[in-house]
Amino acid sequence: MRLVTYKRSGTVGERIGALNADGQVLDLAAADPRVDWGNMPALIGGGAAMLERARVAAAKAPVAADAVLMAPIPRPPKNIFCVGKNYHEHAKEFAGSGFDGGAKDVVPPFPVVFSKPHTAIIANGEPILGELDPTGGLDYEGELAVVIGQGGRGIAKADALKHVFGYTIVNDVTARHLQKRHSQWILGKGLDTFCPMGPAILTADEVPDPAALRLTTHVNGEKRQDAPVADLIFDVPTLIEAISAAITLEPGDIIATGTPAGVGIGFNPPKFLNKGDVVRIEITGIGVLENKVA
Amino acid sequence: MRLVTYKRSGTVGERIGALNADGQVLDLAAADPRVDWGNMPALIGGGAAMLERARVAAAKAPVAADAVLMAPIPRPPKNIFCVGKNYHEHAKEFAGSGFDGGAKDVVPPFPVVFSKPHTAIIANGEPILGELDPTGGLDYEGELAVVIGQGGRGIAKADALKHVFGYTIVNDVTARHLQKRHSQWILGKGLDTFCPMGPAILTADEVPDPAALRLTTHVNGEKRQDAPVADLIFDVPTLIEAISAAITLEPGDIIATGTPAGVGIGFNPPKFLNKGDVVRIEITGIGVLENKVA
Repeated sequence: MRLVTYKRSGTVGERIGALNADGQVLDLAAADPRVDWGNMPALIGGGAAMLERARVAAAKAPVAADAVLMAPIPRPPKNIFCVGKNYHEHAKEFAGSGFDGGAKDVVPPFPVVFSKPHTAIIANGEPILGELDPTGGLDYEGELAVVIGQGGRGIAKADALKHVFGYTIVNDVTARHLQKRHSQWILGKGLDTFCPMGPAILTADEVPDPAALRLTTHVNGEKRQDAPVADLIFDVPTLIEAISAAITLEPGDIIATGTPAGVGIGFNPPKFLNKGDVVRIEITGIGVLENKVA
Repeated sequence: MRLVTYKRSGTVGERIGALNADGQVLDLAAADPRVDWGNMPALIGGGAAMLERARVAAAKAPVAADAVLMAPIPRPPKNIFCVGKNYHEHAKEFAGSGFDGGAKDVVPPFPVVFSKPHTAIIANGEPILGELDPTGGLDYEGELAVVIGQGGRGIAKADALKHVFGYTIVNDVTARHLQKRHSQWILGKGLDTFCPMGPAILTADEVPDPAALRLTTHVNGEKRQDAPVADLIFDVPTLIEAISAAITLEPGDIIATGTPAGVGIGFNPPKFLNKGDVVRIEITGIGVLENKVA
């Protein structure tokens, strides 16, 4: 099932929906108005019972004609966890670009984790505000993002996938010069609108192995990234174990797992984003996340 | 006025209080039950009118005999922004310690900003879970923390202090080996209980110039840190301008401004924290934040 957060055109309230095979939004509340659908973290926190209710409702729900997609989780419990340099070929291109101010190792010996605040999150189709990077180093990073289901601390690798509610797509938009200047990355990566997310959460039952997913990124129709998630240096279970070792994860927390080779600074000269450019990221089964630079 | 968040012994609901001169909690809701006091970010979001209501209520409020202090903002809108290497002498001791894996410059040319999730926040008196750092590199960092009042993006340095609601104390507890290993700092600094905060928010009207405040840190009664906030490399207005340049700040967001010299790794050999150690941080007018390592 692909779950979405949406609003009715002209309103602001968050509603929970599911996508049908044609990508139309199904109105779960119309199918079962007795349920308090709340928002996505609340639904996720409701566990297997809420997920089953969503499944039953989706099977008979009408299409919401006036639906406007929002990011699937516009306000996660914490800043989004993001992982840097987590594909071998990307770690190499980043090291070679000269933009990795703080690195000794090309391939990191431990996961490199930073965060983006909720104010960076935008939906599929919303504009990336390129003007917020006045330094002219705007870059894209297509990424698989993990949505945490049951939370906890000290989650072992062997149990980690049981704590995954589903998967979505994140564009880890980056201001490369700011990323380098500030050494720690939140000011170069956490800018408003620099975290496009969506279009939907593909529930974990449809993803027996996240490593089998494939990610592609196109900029203005030109293919830039094309990699299997199997190429991750630290795979999804390892990331969940590493982050939850001492940080309590909560339902709806998000981990963006890193980007493969082919980002703008991977080219010589770099192919930075300009006003009007369209970044289109696709991952098997989840859908397409497309955003234009405004 | 010193505002606090507290709960009644045996309950969990957050209540807003003020401290009297003896450090006792005044029950604002008892003084004015018509007001919906909500939580601290909501009160801050209520602007000057809510602050005035708190002031009037505090003048006639009874002492809450069964009050248990919580962190003043247990759940800020975003992860807490923290600033690294922001005092000259500390920047030198950190560079000299060998723990700053990712640095080229001793004194950073731009603010170094990272974050801690809300799950790291604990109150004055609550235990720091030292066992969450299995690498034996537990360290303290006494810091002045700024609480944002009116939010916004693109706040100019000249206007920045108008956006400050008040000031509190944060202990930026750090697992030094994890900080180094992971290169980006959230996994070495964002561990559960690694952000003691409090005891109170000293409202900005009582702090015409934050640079005039003085911070001291004692460990088991031994003075380790003693510095005027005037020694900050990037002062409070500069930090607000830098962070808000492209990230929308919200009422209740917190910026921990960095620590002065005298942290554990500033000594040779390092003086790491052990079980039973007590860290006591004091800042002029705000009060004392004291936490024991469990």
